Amino acid sequence: MKVYLAGPEVFLPDAKATGHRKKEICARFGLIGLFPLDNEISGTMGERGASVSRWIFRGNTAMMEDADAVIAHLTPFRGPSADPGTVYELGFMAARGKICAGYSNRRCSYIDRIARAASVTPDNGGRTDLDREGHVIENFGLPDNLMIIHALEEFGHPIIVPEAAPADIWRDLTLFEKCAEWITRQGSRAVTANAASR
Amino acid sequence: MKVYLAGPEVFLPDAKATGHRKKEICARFGLIGLFPLDNEISGTMGERGASVSRWIFRGNTAMMEDADAVIAHLTPFRGPSADPGTVYELGFMAARGKICAGYSNRRCSYIDRIARAASVTPDNGGRTDLDREGHVIENFGLPDNLMIIHALEEFGHPIIVPEAAPADIWRDLTLFEKCAEWITRQGSRAVTANAASR
Repeated sequence: MKVYLAGPEVFLPDAKATGHRKKEICARFGLIGLFPLDNEISGTMGERGASVSRWIFRGNTAMMEDADAVIAHLTPFRGPSADPGTVYELGFMAARGKICAGYSNRRCSYIDRIARAASVTPDNGGRTDLDREGHVIENFGLPDNLMIIHALEEFGHPIIVPEAAPADIWRDLTLFEKCAEWITRQGSRAVTANAASR
Repeated sequence: MKVYLAGPEVFLPDAKATGHRKKEICARFGLIGLFPLDNEISGTMGERGASVSRWIFRGNTAMMEDADAVIAHLTPFRGPSADPGTVYELGFMAARGKICAGYSNRRCSYIDRIARAASVTPDNGGRTDLDREGHVIENFGLPDNLMIIHALEEFGHPIIVPEAAPADIWRDLTLFEKCAEWITRQGSRAVTANAASR
């Protein structure tokens, strides 16, 4: 089974090293990890005149179409929510019926992070469910926006969060490994089901 | 044609009023606007014991499946990027082959917003392409993450941004109207193509 490795590690200065570690974990479980930056290693610019960013988009899209599953790294990135590129990819994979798994290396709920990011003030007319901009904060006790959290539940495995945040939230792959292990079990079941139906 | 109205206005204290205005604009162009909170107005809790957030997720997913197109409101929300719920939905609609349009009421590029949100310091070892957390800032001159921007280009119409930000970035529907107008023209073309192929 091929697994698309979605996550903000593409933005790490040592992105390729982290991608390599993810692919090694996948290989240990009999999975083939597809890491976005592999397109840069082996690819050519393709269509003449296409911008670099469009070429990356097309490479990622082709990888997603090729994959059977996605493991989305959803640790909040540059704000209270997950990396938007990863979130887009989760939506894409969910809609294509791929197996969806994901993890976050932070434990706290979305509403806790917003309260920290934008304190509730009396300017809000005394309402305590509004953020600094006057937007209602969804309060479902979930780790992120409900579309992300329930997509994982409905199209794969519920989001996995740590007992306590690891020392390096961007590079710790303990929960990534749990996702890979779970996906492998889905693959085995699919193979068994296919064999039984013959 | 039915159009799914994705955007952070569901978090406005006057969410339903803004949704109503969007639906009126759609109706003027002969489109049927599907607004997420309509599920709350007319729906029942459905499956017994399902949590409210899961019920909202399923309602939104059913609306997306019913729609022919999406207009995604992508004004940066609680950080440098668009609302993650909206981004998830854009990915979902793109993967289902629906017509995708979207707008942002801010003009500046993604990299400009990150520089403001997390200043570049000498702690980054003098690198100027890293944010406060040490992540590389993608510098393609785009208004948001490249997956979002190119998805609109590839699966519909490029993102529409204003000449200057309107007074009320959360409620101004000038660019929403442009998206609705463009979608209507796609519908007309589709009808013409169908007629020609008969």
